[in-house]
Amino acid sequence: MTGYLLQKSIPLLFRVRATLSPLGLDEKPAMCSRITAMVLVRRRLETALFGHRSYTEGSRVSEAGNRPLSSGVRARHLPLARVRTYSSGTRLNDRLLFRQLFESESSTYTYLLADAVSKDAVLIDPVLETIDRDLKLIDELGLQLRVAVNTHCHADHITSTGLMKTRRAGLKSAISKSSGAKADILLTEGDEIRFGKHHLMVRETPGHTDGCVTLVTPDQSMAFTGDALLIRGCGRTDFQQGCSKSLYNSIHKKIFTLPAHCLIYPAHDYRGQTVSTVGEERAFNPRLTKSLDEFVTIMNNLNLPKPSKIDISMPANLVCGVQPI
Amino acid sequence: MTGYLLQKSIPLLFRVRATLSPLGLDEKPAMCSRITAMVLVRRRLETALFGHRSYTEGSRVSEAGNRPLSSGVRARHLPLARVRTYSSGTRLNDRLLFRQLFESESSTYTYLLADAVSKDAVLIDPVLETIDRDLKLIDELGLQLRVAVNTHCHADHITSTGLMKTRRAGLKSAISKSSGAKADILLTEGDEIRFGKHHLMVRETPGHTDGCVTLVTPDQSMAFTGDALLIRGCGRTDFQQGCSKSLYNSIHKKIFTLPAHCLIYPAHDYRGQTVSTVGEERAFNPRLTKSLDEFVTIMNNLNLPKPSKIDISMPANLVCGVQPI
Repeated sequence: MTGYLLQKSIPLLFRVRATLSPLGLDEKPAMCSRITAMVLVRRRLETALFGHRSYTEGSRVSEAGNRPLSSGVRARHLPLARVRTYSSGTRLNDRLLFRQLFESESSTYTYLLADAVSKDAVLIDPVLETIDRDLKLIDELGLQLRVAVNTHCHADHITSTGLMKTRRAGLKSAISKSSGAKADILLTEGDEIRFGKHHLMVRETPGHTDGCVTLVTPDQSMAFTGDALLIRGCGRTDFQQGCSKSLYNSIHKKIFTLPAHCLIYPAHDYRGQTVSTVGEERAFNPRLTKSLDEFVTIMNNLNLPKPSKIDISMPANLVCGVQPI
Repeated sequence: MTGYLLQKSIPLLFRVRATLSPLGLDEKPAMCSRITAMVLVRRRLETALFGHRSYTEGSRVSEAGNRPLSSGVRARHLPLARVRTYSSGTRLNDRLLFRQLFESESSTYTYLLADAVSKDAVLIDPVLETIDRDLKLIDELGLQLRVAVNTHCHADHITSTGLMKTRRAGLKSAISKSSGAKADILLTEGDEIRFGKHHLMVRETPGHTDGCVTLVTPDQSMAFTGDALLIRGCGRTDFQQGCSKSLYNSIHKKIFTLPAHCLIYPAHDYRGQTVSTVGEERAFNPRLTKSLDEFVTIMNNLNLPKPSKIDISMPANLVCGVQPI
């Protein structure tokens, strides 16, 4: 198991300065008081964005005042508000910020996860066409992007990880070792991708490609399944070392063994669905509820057209997109 | 204030039977033991979907065994799992199931909310083209759809609420009284849309149209803003009784007064963004961070083309879509 302990090396000023204007905070601090001004600006920015306790989106309110919300986490008393629990997009106890983003041409989901305290962030499957949108959001939220990871070597779009590295100092790209692609971090089974006090666990789930991985939160409440398991579907297996038997076993042994409530966040959806659960896919996935033999037969008879971008995406994605690392 | 206390009138059997096959539960119970069989089937379905405690997606796990998670809610001990807190998409303490769905032609978001215990559900802004997808999901999750509500009389797509009423007994359509449209429930400021033990509060937010409403959860953690406030944008004001000044005031007085962490779920997004927060929009919305006069000038100079579907959508949506109520 490899742990990537990331350094907080990106200066705060650039990120904060980019967000000052809408808050009316665009005065330039004197050099000698820059750190103090940065702290003040950061506090004002956090207050504006997250409220007095710099919460992220999705917190909820309960009646109690000063009692444990989960192991080791104690909420302070709020005179006016109330102690919060959680809703979609965030959790208070572990302060995990989460955003799902969509690229419509390739129907790709990009996921942003961040430690709402340290501001360290990880981006999953970013797409070249939406790099400006993604970096703007990351800057607005005051995050420091530490790792940009691809769940596999995509055939339908070009990743933005390479270009992103040229635009954010200290950013590391990541992909599985089995993909054969180059990146700063080559992932294998059991690796952890750390961001602040959070991390994602790597599960190798080959079948769509040899190098597909599923990224799982430590509590197994969220799984980013790439092109292995889709909502009521799965990735195709007819190119790029695809193997139906391998995919079937990956999903049944590495994903369907997660808790029923575990949220499934795929790399794509083509029907406007945003999320599923392990329990739902175990019960309703039209392919994976079949036997292995039936599944192989289904996959062998999909007769899908060749992905339109495969000839440019595959070579580019072997080197983090258009920019060599 | 009007409260809509909904009756549980839809037979369970139809919904459960529709989901039996993937679970291998498609044997037909004898008439005399149908109720018992239904209970067993329901338990097996819930276990398959949600785990041993019939949780919905998004639950999280913490270390403790049998202690309060929030006021009035006590978690039972789980021998193998652990007591859960929450993550995106659901909350354990109030058992709110939540799904965001997307219709790509009009870039419309539809929202499904349900009481995970009683299974009563409400659907916000459903689109005609995705009625089959939406009803299939509702059936798979074992929900009873009580109310289908439109945040306003849409100009860019036809609502499915009318057709949906012909396909789900007991379903009520809802829209604001100020919209001038017909529906079973005509909403005004302060009304509550109830589903199980949950409800949404109605805030009138005119400006895009006279009849726009924003629906807010009682704890103010989620706001469904329709076309009033979009992510880093807002609805246009150049037709259908649109008024820039009114929209500006609606957003500032009825939405920006919500807590900073309150999640903003709009009726549309055209850039692949799924959610924002009040804090973010207060800080970064390029239109709403301006003065009223500047906002009016911006809105008067958008020069947008006429919505392609307005001539068919508007008359249809005045009567819940293609089907008269």
